Amino acid sequence: MVIAGPSPGSGEIAGSIARGLGADVIVAESKTFPDGESYVRVPQSLEGEEAVVVQTLSPPQDTSVIQAMLLADAVLGAGARKATLVAPYLAYSRQDRRFLDGEPVSVAVVLRALHSAGYSALYTVEVHKEASLAHFPGEARSISPYEYMARRVKVEGDLLVLAPDLGAVGRAERLAKALGASYDYLVKHRDRVTGEIVIEPKTIPAEGKTVILVDDIISTGGTLAKATKLLYQQGAREVYALVAHALLAGNALERLEEAGLRKLYAGNTLPKREHPLLEYVDLGPLIAEVLSSG
Amino acid sequence: MVIAGPSPGSGEIAGSIARGLGADVIVAESKTFPDGESYVRVPQSLEGEEAVVVQTLSPPQDTSVIQAMLLADAVLGAGARKATLVAPYLAYSRQDRRFLDGEPVSVAVVLRALHSAGYSALYTVEVHKEASLAHFPGEARSISPYEYMARRVKVEGDLLVLAPDLGAVGRAERLAKALGASYDYLVKHRDRVTGEIVIEPKTIPAEGKTVILVDDIISTGGTLAKATKLLYQQGAREVYALVAHALLAGNALERLEEAGLRKLYAGNTLPKREHPLLEYVDLGPLIAEVLSSG
Repeated sequence: MVIAGPSPGSGEIAGSIARGLGADVIVAESKTFPDGESYVRVPQSLEGEEAVVVQTLSPPQDTSVIQAMLLADAVLGAGARKATLVAPYLAYSRQDRRFLDGEPVSVAVVLRALHSAGYSALYTVEVHKEASLAHFPGEARSISPYEYMARRVKVEGDLLVLAPDLGAVGRAERLAKALGASYDYLVKHRDRVTGEIVIEPKTIPAEGKTVILVDDIISTGGTLAKATKLLYQQGAREVYALVAHALLAGNALERLEEAGLRKLYAGNTLPKREHPLLEYVDLGPLIAEVLSSG
Repeated sequence: MVIAGPSPGSGEIAGSIARGLGADVIVAESKTFPDGESYVRVPQSLEGEEAVVVQTLSPPQDTSVIQAMLLADAVLGAGARKATLVAPYLAYSRQDRRFLDGEPVSVAVVLRALHSAGYSALYTVEVHKEASLAHFPGEARSISPYEYMARRVKVEGDLLVLAPDLGAVGRAERLAKALGASYDYLVKHRDRVTGEIVIEPKTIPAEGKTVILVDDIISTGGTLAKATKLLYQQGAREVYALVAHALLAGNALERLEEAGLRKLYAGNTLPKREHPLLEYVDLGPLIAEVLSSG
């Protein structure tokens, strides 16, 4: 049984996952009490069932995390023999180490808390760092969407897939192979105190190329906008971007448009926005396939 | 070392607790990322120290809970040998059982999550049900504030302490004994689906009395406003209220004022509001005393 959680964006992908699994889907009841506390409820018995809760950890992330935790207890209380969480977007995945002394490893805290709530298995799409999932004291798996998304990308020309930094080069490699293209990476630095991003103008063979920038998450769009501008300066013909998770905080879309990006391909792991730049790929069937085989 | 968390209301009571303990207090750094994620940081080493994190779980509760969790990992990462949480107000404490099938036991979920984050001890003020603390897999203690608050109440006349329902009669008894007054309780029903509260007009000897209504939490003020009106109808001379936690959601203060309440005494476990009806009692010294003796 698939249980669709109340966080923004969960309903649609939960339906798609359920169709892929050939499973029923029920929508969790939810409300906010007058004082601000979250409430969820599973409206039917799950006696003896495996409960697959689909709750993406979309903004407001803290409420989405708490709701996911409450749902684990609710489904187990309703008789489910196992609670599995599908969190297509795993919030807090970028705070995966202590960049500065005195910081928390937030992703570890969230993963331990989800387990403590009752989930024994967790699936997500393209976690920021694969190694983070070791903090979940159960079965945890990150699903790479790039090959699946490559089949839905309609881009022509002499393709070059680029990662905005060395950390994402594995992502570029996967997408490039699926597209039969070459790949490379840019060099990015982030000031850990100010948060400012500097992309060094490494010489890349962008001249006349159709470039696809690939990353796991787009948040404010700062990195991708800077990279797009740099690539046009280096002679790229067209620049596209492809991400698993489109957070699109603040004026991200305006920044990308202004930089001249042609299109942003994104997984539907977060609530959809309407914008001519955006094209979503439904990852529900892919997630269902992995759930079935796992 | 006392670490003041970033949730609304934590700073003042953290300072008061630290003074009571004769301990230093440091304020945790905090911010919200552009996409909405919470960030905290402890700005100095806590090598070998016992870290007492004071973070009340005030609205927005979900963020306060997540910040509390992140702080546990931060203080342990900063070298603390033990992380103790003082959460003067414990959010989600009223969802302490499955009132309807399919609900979570939210307080259990939150307590397990706080433990999973790294806290080995937890102190709160007047948890809704004492038994809930058994869900915390470590040392947990609820501090009753009524005797302490009784010494700071300036109410004269023929005193009667009243609980708004049978569940709170233990609270009325404690306060009544400290004041040398008699006590009784009203009969309250709450419709679990609509949330509506009905107070049955049980005959109580309110005639000519100065009544102090006592409860753990005031949220929307619905219960206390109804009880206040009922008591005036039954001949009470003056009606006061005393609570540990003043959430005061929505127009709670207006409702109480309209019902004719003379004054609301409240602990400073939640952010203070300015209102002629309100008188706060600083519970920091009491919490410090319990922490020292524990």
